[in-house]
Amino acid sequence: MIPKPSLDPERLLQELEQLATYSDTPKPAVTRVVFSPPDLEARAYLTRLCREAGLSLRADGLGNLFARWEGTAPELPAVATGSHYDAVPYAGMYDGTVGVLGGLEAIRSLQRAGFQPKRSIELILFTAEEPTRFGIGCLGSRGLAGALVPDSLRELTDSEGRSLEELRQIAGYTADLDEVLLPEGFYHSFVELHIEQGPTLEQEQVPIGIVTAIAAPASLRVTLEGRGGHAGTVLMPERRDALCAAAEIILGVEAFAKNSGSINTVATTGLCEVYPNAVNSVPSQVRLEIDVRDVDPQRRDGVIRSIIQGVEQVGTRRGIDYNVQIVNLDPPAKSGTEVLRALASACGEAGVKFKPMVSRAYHDTLFMARVCPTAMIFIPCRNGVSHRPDEYASPEDIARGTYILALALAHLSYAEDKPSEEKPGAPKDSPPIFID
Amino acid sequence: MIPKPSLDPERLLQELEQLATYSDTPKPAVTRVVFSPPDLEARAYLTRLCREAGLSLRADGLGNLFARWEGTAPELPAVATGSHYDAVPYAGMYDGTVGVLGGLEAIRSLQRAGFQPKRSIELILFTAEEPTRFGIGCLGSRGLAGALVPDSLRELTDSEGRSLEELRQIAGYTADLDEVLLPEGFYHSFVELHIEQGPTLEQEQVPIGIVTAIAAPASLRVTLEGRGGHAGTVLMPERRDALCAAAEIILGVEAFAKNSGSINTVATTGLCEVYPNAVNSVPSQVRLEIDVRDVDPQRRDGVIRSIIQGVEQVGTRRGIDYNVQIVNLDPPAKSGTEVLRALASACGEAGVKFKPMVSRAYHDTLFMARVCPTAMIFIPCRNGVSHRPDEYASPEDIARGTYILALALAHLSYAEDKPSEEKPGAPKDSPPIFID
Repeated sequence: MIPKPSLDPERLLQELEQLATYSDTPKPAVTRVVFSPPDLEARAYLTRLCREAGLSLRADGLGNLFARWEGTAPELPAVATGSHYDAVPYAGMYDGTVGVLGGLEAIRSLQRAGFQPKRSIELILFTAEEPTRFGIGCLGSRGLAGALVPDSLRELTDSEGRSLEELRQIAGYTADLDEVLLPEGFYHSFVELHIEQGPTLEQEQVPIGIVTAIAAPASLRVTLEGRGGHAGTVLMPERRDALCAAAEIILGVEAFAKNSGSINTVATTGLCEVYPNAVNSVPSQVRLEIDVRDVDPQRRDGVIRSIIQGVEQVGTRRGIDYNVQIVNLDPPAKSGTEVLRALASACGEAGVKFKPMVSRAYHDTLFMARVCPTAMIFIPCRNGVSHRPDEYASPEDIARGTYILALALAHLSYAEDKPSEEKPGAPKDSPPIFID
Repeated sequence: MIPKPSLDPERLLQELEQLATYSDTPKPAVTRVVFSPPDLEARAYLTRLCREAGLSLRADGLGNLFARWEGTAPELPAVATGSHYDAVPYAGMYDGTVGVLGGLEAIRSLQRAGFQPKRSIELILFTAEEPTRFGIGCLGSRGLAGALVPDSLRELTDSEGRSLEELRQIAGYTADLDEVLLPEGFYHSFVELHIEQGPTLEQEQVPIGIVTAIAAPASLRVTLEGRGGHAGTVLMPERRDALCAAAEIILGVEAFAKNSGSINTVATTGLCEVYPNAVNSVPSQVRLEIDVRDVDPQRRDGVIRSIIQGVEQVGTRRGIDYNVQIVNLDPPAKSGTEVLRALASACGEAGVKFKPMVSRAYHDTLFMARVCPTAMIFIPCRNGVSHRPDEYASPEDIARGTYILALALAHLSYAEDKPSEEKPGAPKDSPPIFID
């Protein structure tokens, strides 16, 4: 029933190269921040490609784009794939884009092979998976899944004080934010193709990873306010140095993760900003941003509690005012059994070895898992490097992942109406999101 | 022989207010970085005031300005006063400027009183006492004293890569840098009026401080390079996090100063810059700038050695590449006995209580002490606050300090030819200055 997908790997690579030219930094570095000129150029380019493939397009108020290949049973929940095409400053050209253009090529390869889908197949181009502009990752997929409610979306601003509300309207996305949330049962299943962003597949020489779970991410923003002064005249016992307090917290974050009892716990103080940041001034203010992840959300939350207690202790002992804000505290996602089965079957048909694995990076799939059963396909990337100009995935690995994706989408398109008795992988209700 | 100086405190305050308007930030914050438009406006304004007072002006290649009131014995080494008028970002309106306009008003008050100097009296307006633009403090006075040799000056650049050479020429200071160094015996003595930048005079309710010594400042630049990566995918044992290494060093800097055995040791990590500084990236690079001071240069150098050893240990243990650069390592300055005597006499004549004190902040006087005997007059500033928009010195304290300065300049103008058998307060040879 399902023909062999007829892939055009050369075209796919050319399109990846073309997409990489929409950037605010010179080649090979890619910088494409949501609603910046390169992001808008990328949207125009991708929209054109989807139209050329005969897909029908819709956009929601966040700028998420949906390109639909109508099936013979358009009334059934659709099968979806997709990823993101924004890029952090000085990133590479494969993160996200492989799932966007690979998703499109998977559809085209089925079209070329004469395949006719039963359930419609949709390609989703998510807005702003990276937290660069608005400080929170997976903006588009959070919106689709209701993990960010419209009122929270309306309060988001970038570091220059420009609101998401303003920027989306300028970009041409004027639809009501209340209509971003997907209706229940809208999708049958979702599969995302992505580079691993870690070294495992390359090291173990396995060409495909099938993601069974995504680790639960969380992030904190800590602000510290002590007392500034002249570095020469304020004696040591009189000091309330915000950077010294921050240093203790940074080391605490590291120690709590190391001592969690599991290799799967990671915690990072990725951002540290000091005021006034002058060699001859005692630092009066510091802002830290901290990332904590674990496959076990209870263990992760234990680390977060330790960090918060640590901030309180350091602040109290040093006479530093502190504020801790939980920016996000997301549940982990377990992949859907039937989607995993479709991916395993596809690998079997293609004669490709795969490795079941956990994703410690998070992806739009984490939020799509609140909407429908999901899974992810990982392909190797050189030295596990990502978010850097030298990020690289080989043409063979990209083509292989796209081929597996195409087969899986075809299978899922003909899956039973109720694909499984299972619930979506993660609880619908999300913890409150605090935005300042 | 010496008449009572005839002060015009109102005019002095108006001029301080006017000078504060030359700023890159709105009132009350003053930002005046060397060779920026506000700095050039301030130079034009101060030059005009000096001309109006009948002083003859010269400028050197660094933009140091010298305004001379010719004495009856112009062949004798002159008596000098002066300070700086640049301001760090978001500073106040009294740091430095009180000694610049107070110095000018001291001269005018003697002119009004009909005083005729024997030795000429010079007002020096130093270029760039603040390290804001070129990363090293007291640029002008270092040049005058030979603590920065012309070849080092020619290598200085700002953070945008613009060279001092280019910027001084654009500002109109085209004289040869080889002629900045003052000839031996050029000045008989130097007195600087300045706000205390500390709380002691205010707390002890003493209106005048006479500075007997200036603590020896030093600064280090530490660069750390570890390995970046995705905050979700790089496991804790694999990390080489440059910010965690920096945190240990920051706490070490604090501990070494606290444990030096003397209250007079201070050490500060004032600047911390992180790359890439994103919440979801492991920090790969950190730059720290560290300030260390003590009245005892041996003890200070012991702290510096401990810091350097600490960097080496932390870097080795964590697999972080490190580089430590000594930006400056200046000797302390002891005030000249005869200058101190002139200041004490002036306070006696004026019936003003004074306190002998050590300056832990450093000033252009630190370098003038290599040229001739020096001392400083401190006046109280509110809450010891400086380098902030709310920096404040009262009109009464400013007038009192200016009056004492005028009396002291008049006394020194008639001092014996060889003012004392003493040598200038600090050794002439300075340690090498490394500039990257």
